[in-house]
Amino acid sequence: MRTLYHTPLSPYCRKIRLLLREKDLDFDLIAENFWDRRLEFFALNPAGEVPVLLEPDGEVICGNHAIMEYLEEAYRDNKRFVGSSIAERAEVRRLIDWFDRKFDQEVTQNILFEKIFKRLWRYGEPHSDAIRAGKKNILYHLDYIAFLTLEHRYLTGDTPTLADMAAAAHLSAIDYLGDVPWEHNAKAKDWYALMKSRPSLRSVLTDRVAMAKPPEHYEDPDF
Amino acid sequence: MRTLYHTPLSPYCRKIRLLLREKDLDFDLIAENFWDRRLEFFALNPAGEVPVLLEPDGEVICGNHAIMEYLEEAYRDNKRFVGSSIAERAEVRRLIDWFDRKFDQEVTQNILFEKIFKRLWRYGEPHSDAIRAGKKNILYHLDYIAFLTLEHRYLTGDTPTLADMAAAAHLSAIDYLGDVPWEHNAKAKDWYALMKSRPSLRSVLTDRVAMAKPPEHYEDPDF
Repeated sequence: MRTLYHTPLSPYCRKIRLLLREKDLDFDLIAENFWDRRLEFFALNPAGEVPVLLEPDGEVICGNHAIMEYLEEAYRDNKRFVGSSIAERAEVRRLIDWFDRKFDQEVTQNILFEKIFKRLWRYGEPHSDAIRAGKKNILYHLDYIAFLTLEHRYLTGDTPTLADMAAAAHLSAIDYLGDVPWEHNAKAKDWYALMKSRPSLRSVLTDRVAMAKPPEHYEDPDF
Repeated sequence: MRTLYHTPLSPYCRKIRLLLREKDLDFDLIAENFWDRRLEFFALNPAGEVPVLLEPDGEVICGNHAIMEYLEEAYRDNKRFVGSSIAERAEVRRLIDWFDRKFDQEVTQNILFEKIFKRLWRYGEPHSDAIRAGKKNILYHLDYIAFLTLEHRYLTGDTPTLADMAAAAHLSAIDYLGDVPWEHNAKAKDWYALMKSRPSLRSVLTDRVAMAKPPEHYEDPDF
């Protein structure tokens, strides 16, 4: 069986989970507390990080970019999510970078890391300044999502791509903490409602972590 | 003409410069102080970040992953640097992630950001604790390079790939500041000497920034 080592709430793991489901690839999930530095896990991935994909033939793929490109290439006969022309693929990958670097630095690190992972890793108390900055920064990212969906349903066209999955992976983790002000932009909320109606994201939204409970609207596509 | 908007010492821009040269693609370089938030630059890349590649046909490619994958795909008849089988490509991309995420967080941010970009961006004084941590962390990354080159000349085989370029991009930026203790691991030094003997890296090593002078050995392949 295909196995994905992941950590709940990690946007990078969520992106891969979304992609696996959208490509109709079955997999088992193993929650790996990689900060416990389990030796057997280091044997799989010397970086000691999630996500790690263990394929049915024993192949091990480490790192979120590597896994994403691998899945698109190895299962090219399944539905593809990185765009069909070279220009489209450049646009999808630009937006993946946007969410995985820019949104990550400006929002995810400031909110998710401060509130959850810092405690989990015993890195000290959350900084309220950082959380405040994250809550301010998220506003223009919601506006950007609204801008991108002015002329089509998803971020790059009328079908979802890995860009939508990267965005939904980060936003769903922040939303678990109740820190996405959806009322700020109705158009961004519409896009997220569309994503939430997809079985791929629904399966991710059933995760719970001990440290925090998600808000009422978290799993509801009509929120 | 093809144009790359870059920032000297940025490992992400250096990686793309190495790839362009290795693929024999001519380009002009424009140094963009993206922190000045020039409006015309935002029109090219809404993220306001380097690298940005402007192709001769007017196509604009933003973000280091997007540019890297684009160049490999658009110029597939030129020499390729992401590996020839699916398994090789997964390994090359795993190592790109290693250097662009792990090395970046553990070394580059602690040394290059603290010493150069923090000052440039007026983010305050460098933290000596961070610099110390970066100098400690770099040791095991050098050991890892030595381990990877035990059985072949480059990181994944006997020819260089994007994994070597990502590694050399980060290390060359740290080496500019004199902070790579090459004496720590002779095997890692051998690999870097091999990289330095390539015209692609040589052209990158001629860059100078006003804030700091590189050490004597910086450009010398026999260091």
